[in-house]
Amino acid sequence: MLSAEIIAVGSELLTPEKTDSNSLWLTEKLNEAGVEVMLKTIVGDDEARLEETIRDAVKRSDIVITTGGLGPTEDDVTRQVSGRAVGRELVYHDELEADLRERFRRWGREMPEINKRQAYVIEGAEILPNPNGSAVGMKLEIDGKLFVVLPGPPRELKPMYENFVASRVREMAGEVYAKRRILRVSGMGESAVDEVIAPIYKAFENVQTSILFSKSEIEVHLAAKASSEKEVLGILDKLAGKIADALGMAVFATNGETLEEVVGAMLIAEGKTLAVAESCTGGLIGMRLTDVAGSSQYFLEGAVTYSNEAKMRTLGVPEQTLIDHGAVSAETAEAMAEGIRRRAGTDYGISVTGIAGPDGGTVEKPVGTVLIGYADAGKTRSVKFTFPGDRYLIRWRSSQAALDYLRRQMIKAKNAEPSAAAG
Amino acid sequence: MLSAEIIAVGSELLTPEKTDSNSLWLTEKLNEAGVEVMLKTIVGDDEARLEETIRDAVKRSDIVITTGGLGPTEDDVTRQVSGRAVGRELVYHDELEADLRERFRRWGREMPEINKRQAYVIEGAEILPNPNGSAVGMKLEIDGKLFVVLPGPPRELKPMYENFVASRVREMAGEVYAKRRILRVSGMGESAVDEVIAPIYKAFENVQTSILFSKSEIEVHLAAKASSEKEVLGILDKLAGKIADALGMAVFATNGETLEEVVGAMLIAEGKTLAVAESCTGGLIGMRLTDVAGSSQYFLEGAVTYSNEAKMRTLGVPEQTLIDHGAVSAETAEAMAEGIRRRAGTDYGISVTGIAGPDGGTVEKPVGTVLIGYADAGKTRSVKFTFPGDRYLIRWRSSQAALDYLRRQMIKAKNAEPSAAAG
Repeated sequence: MLSAEIIAVGSELLTPEKTDSNSLWLTEKLNEAGVEVMLKTIVGDDEARLEETIRDAVKRSDIVITTGGLGPTEDDVTRQVSGRAVGRELVYHDELEADLRERFRRWGREMPEINKRQAYVIEGAEILPNPNGSAVGMKLEIDGKLFVVLPGPPRELKPMYENFVASRVREMAGEVYAKRRILRVSGMGESAVDEVIAPIYKAFENVQTSILFSKSEIEVHLAAKASSEKEVLGILDKLAGKIADALGMAVFATNGETLEEVVGAMLIAEGKTLAVAESCTGGLIGMRLTDVAGSSQYFLEGAVTYSNEAKMRTLGVPEQTLIDHGAVSAETAEAMAEGIRRRAGTDYGISVTGIAGPDGGTVEKPVGTVLIGYADAGKTRSVKFTFPGDRYLIRWRSSQAALDYLRRQMIKAKNAEPSAAAG
Repeated sequence: MLSAEIIAVGSELLTPEKTDSNSLWLTEKLNEAGVEVMLKTIVGDDEARLEETIRDAVKRSDIVITTGGLGPTEDDVTRQVSGRAVGRELVYHDELEADLRERFRRWGREMPEINKRQAYVIEGAEILPNPNGSAVGMKLEIDGKLFVVLPGPPRELKPMYENFVASRVREMAGEVYAKRRILRVSGMGESAVDEVIAPIYKAFENVQTSILFSKSEIEVHLAAKASSEKEVLGILDKLAGKIADALGMAVFATNGETLEEVVGAMLIAEGKTLAVAESCTGGLIGMRLTDVAGSSQYFLEGAVTYSNEAKMRTLGVPEQTLIDHGAVSAETAEAMAEGIRRRAGTDYGISVTGIAGPDGGTVEKPVGTVLIGYADAGKTRSVKFTFPGDRYLIRWRSSQAALDYLRRQMIKAKNAEPSAAAG
């Protein structure tokens, strides 16, 4: 398998605030072509380090891609340093200068002299046009290795890769099609998932399976390669299907979908509507549901009833329920779910009430105590969780638990249908 | 100034899904000690590449920190490879094995033989205890260079760095205190901000000032170093104060605060309460407001009125308003703000209604058209935006615009107070 390295250039990528996101996109594209990314480097405008990095990379990997550092200023050192690293001169291209002058003219401006730097290209390199910016890219092959220099802004980099690099990478990699597939699992731990599915995935020697813990769920990542797209998709479909069968209801996504997408698709399929009453999540569930384009088909209303008064006024939670059981109780959660369902006139109502912290916990109800309520035309239910984590994680996990509870109730209702019809 | 390199080890960090977040935290800590991070590398379990990376790093930089790859499995290669890279043997520590056996015993389990690998330490290295995991860290100094090997999980890495590495880094760096400060600016473009503040920050030669565009605002980053913490904070306070004065109301944060924190602090200071009516943002504003611990003091209720029926029923928006002007109109936004304020009985009501896309746009009201409403005891206002971007960005920018509109109205009301009192 071919190996690749990605080198991101830019001092701003070495600050505590910024990450290099271009490399994630490039990794996906390279992986799909069956190329493995073996190393990523982030380097600033330090010429010596950048030169050493490029030189090492070209020596040991088949494909090397740099991103960024092609601007017109002194700090933009990628052009000259990459020339030095591969032992070639830079050549001035009059036609690039003419292009640049024309670009600036179109904006009604005079080209600053400093932009002339962008008309230099490594000797023998193919020039990669950039309709979205002033820096052209470069592509050259040295001793069977591919060395590509791309600009940093994603909207310049992505089309340049797709249009001028992707096909050469595919040619080099041969007829290898690699695909990844992500299954998402709720309500089970990492080792429990592995215990169930290990006998299954171990029989698929040509699929690389890994089990990862995300912030509120287990993800099963499958990666496979084959000589055609159809073949690789077939392999992944088969394994994903077997895993989904073995884990049953715990699998909520077999193709990387988010839980809000899955729930939304189920509501559309059944022609049902939903309303949500939130307390500690403060709008997070509504936000997630409406993150899905077209969600207005099934999501009609949300209530963020942060105060007890709002719970009574907007959701009709009885004052006595709040007095007897408190705002964080199964009784309140159920009254909230019923209340929002009644108010919005939807098929389903779900609710969350809990203590997200850092304050507000007690011995009986510590921080992380969360009640999820559910109501449909026939019944009302609730479930209690005690989530670990900080305020952010407790809120996230609460939103995930609420959407998953709705999903499970919908599946149960559906599974019960035929026998109900029979009875 | 001392230079540092960070090397993150782990194949999962070379997938399209994962970024290395440890290095951001480490960069912040190193920067605060006056150390500059010159290069970051992400490498998998490829032993040759990892060895070359460590060897190059130790040769050219003063401080080298590796993270991850210290687990008990075959894939965890950092221990032996870093030993090779610095030319030292690994030594078996019986007391570490005893510690590991004791750890497992406390969990009621037998230590798997494979965990013995974690009892090996580079010859001459100081062992860094890990109360939160099974992998100890290592610290060694070679020819005046500091080489540190830390585990990957953040809750193991962070305390280990703070307790056993930070003080040595400070000693090496000398009496240098570096601090960063972030100001956030709404409603102005990058070049407009630069035009106003360039004459100010150019007079502060010892502060590095950069102007960055974030997803909905301009950030002004200040970075300074001095020989005492007091001195560096004094310099930053002075420059931040001058910039804030020059930009006026456009500056909403002078110390990195989020807009929801700023608005929350203003509401607490004035003893005022808020309710929010959201349509296209779907709960995002409520979620952001309640992200701040203690927000129940001022945030009483939110309504996510996605359907027209909900806008009428819950907020009392007149049907005729919706018929005459549409759901995305100044009239509807204002009726929503008044409606939620009335329903919740709060001092302020704010609202958002708009078209987040990708569908639903028209020639008159394209995707990105967003109306923000505001109501207080005395008046109702609205403002219209046309935001560029995808669904995610339009929703984010809408939430930001709504919170900022409230902030500006509150400042205006406050500024008007003295003259009102005088009159």
